[in-house]
Amino acid sequence: MTQLTSPTRTVEADNGTTFAYRRFGKQSDVPLLLLQCFRGNIDLWDPIMVDTIAAEREVITVDASGVGRSTGSTPHNVPDYARDIISFVDALGLHNIDLLGFSMGGFVAQELTLMRPYLIRQLVLAGTGPEGGRGFHKWADELQSHAFKEEQDAEDLLYLFFTPSEASRAKGMDYLGRIFSRESDQDAVTSLETRDAQIDAIADWGIPDPSKFSRLAGLRQPTLVVNGDRDIMVPTPNTFLLAGHLPNAELVLYPDAAHGALFQYPEDFGNRVNEFLEAAEDPAW
Amino acid sequence: MTQLTSPTRTVEADNGTTFAYRRFGKQSDVPLLLLQCFRGNIDLWDPIMVDTIAAEREVITVDASGVGRSTGSTPHNVPDYARDIISFVDALGLHNIDLLGFSMGGFVAQELTLMRPYLIRQLVLAGTGPEGGRGFHKWADELQSHAFKEEQDAEDLLYLFFTPSEASRAKGMDYLGRIFSRESDQDAVTSLETRDAQIDAIADWGIPDPSKFSRLAGLRQPTLVVNGDRDIMVPTPNTFLLAGHLPNAELVLYPDAAHGALFQYPEDFGNRVNEFLEAAEDPAW
Repeated sequence: MTQLTSPTRTVEADNGTTFAYRRFGKQSDVPLLLLQCFRGNIDLWDPIMVDTIAAEREVITVDASGVGRSTGSTPHNVPDYARDIISFVDALGLHNIDLLGFSMGGFVAQELTLMRPYLIRQLVLAGTGPEGGRGFHKWADELQSHAFKEEQDAEDLLYLFFTPSEASRAKGMDYLGRIFSRESDQDAVTSLETRDAQIDAIADWGIPDPSKFSRLAGLRQPTLVVNGDRDIMVPTPNTFLLAGHLPNAELVLYPDAAHGALFQYPEDFGNRVNEFLEAAEDPAW
Repeated sequence: MTQLTSPTRTVEADNGTTFAYRRFGKQSDVPLLLLQCFRGNIDLWDPIMVDTIAAEREVITVDASGVGRSTGSTPHNVPDYARDIISFVDALGLHNIDLLGFSMGGFVAQELTLMRPYLIRQLVLAGTGPEGGRGFHKWADELQSHAFKEEQDAEDLLYLFFTPSEASRAKGMDYLGRIFSRESDQDAVTSLETRDAQIDAIADWGIPDPSKFSRLAGLRQPTLVVNGDRDIMVPTPNTFLLAGHLPNAELVLYPDAAHGALFQYPEDFGNRVNEFLEAAEDPAW
């Protein structure tokens, strides 16, 4: 079973949402839950990246309320988003998970871990930043025009996730080819209502406020912080803020890469996630 | 003229100190002033590193008051240290310089730049951290025993500047060979009185206080932030704090390297400093 072949399942949670999710990969005690970015659904995950991780451990991908084929309304702020995902985790009866959050999913991952510190063993934060961070409260006009466009095309995703270099854009085209190669049971495109709720959630999290960085002291879980060296969506200095303030972080910075670094280096990223999570399973740890 | 052959000169400053310094390299409009680490004198700079930079621009190395062959007493806190170096810069009649600070020299470089923002064009901060940073206020016992030892030997410097890996230690031995190959006009070993003054200065700068990070907003100069990925003297997360909070920073992180990353990768580091400083001279900049 792979990212392209695993069936979509549903579960009813106590917040009233029927969540669409997928769960596959090598049986492991602690599954890895993946939280997606702005406007992303479960088909947006890179098959190479997910399958590299799924070769070593169970992975769960999920659409939040109102996203893709999950029912309900998408929350307009990160704490409500975290509570939404907690309802999903509770519906699956999980008590110990690793958590990977990409971009806005990384905001949710931080908040969820602060709310339920005993639930989360290890964290992976990719292309994301701390509450109150730098430069993503209100995006510049050109970035907005690509990010908010009603129907996004390949050029928009290349602009947002990859760098202007030929090499990075070529990797971007490869990634786009991979995510659009699922042959059946595709997820639904994110609605404009969900887009607008997520814009609110991102702006709220992005209100500049360095006093919020002290909350990161509560994230004591070993954390792998990853980004490209030229992310413009959640600008790369936010990655340094995370790695600097988190009590127990490792940093991986990919060269000539942007917000979508994890999709530009999907195999290397997947392997690093595996190594990082395996370290927690080492009895000597 | 090179790091190993340039003569030591002296200049009398208005703070009463006669500073020992060296000045050599390719004539350039803006010289690069190098500020040294705890217990370091001007002979501790890596010849490969300095000569790589000196091939492209004028470099100035200096002993602060009470260090090496400079007269006077070493300041017990970073602001007084910065004023001490400002006296030296004024004595040379310089009005526009680039500044490279290593470790405690990086503390001084930050403070000096905040005091005299118009003097400094660009900054290079290696193996250093912000005021109020993480884990260098009081070093752990083992680290102390190497750092404070009355007569340090090769093993102490390997422990402090390089990682425990064979590869890093071998590079460390190469570095030690280079710095001890100056044939005449060697600098004087740092006194224990200076050591103790510097311990005070480091402890004062290291009192944990995240509110101090907001001062970094005043360092608007383009800044190159460099470290090894496993510095234990000014632990690597401090490097991320700098890169995250500085308004205009680039980060270079060397693998399997510690506090002395700039001496483990002296040619690469020198070339990166040159590229970074050249960028400021590009009319398109």
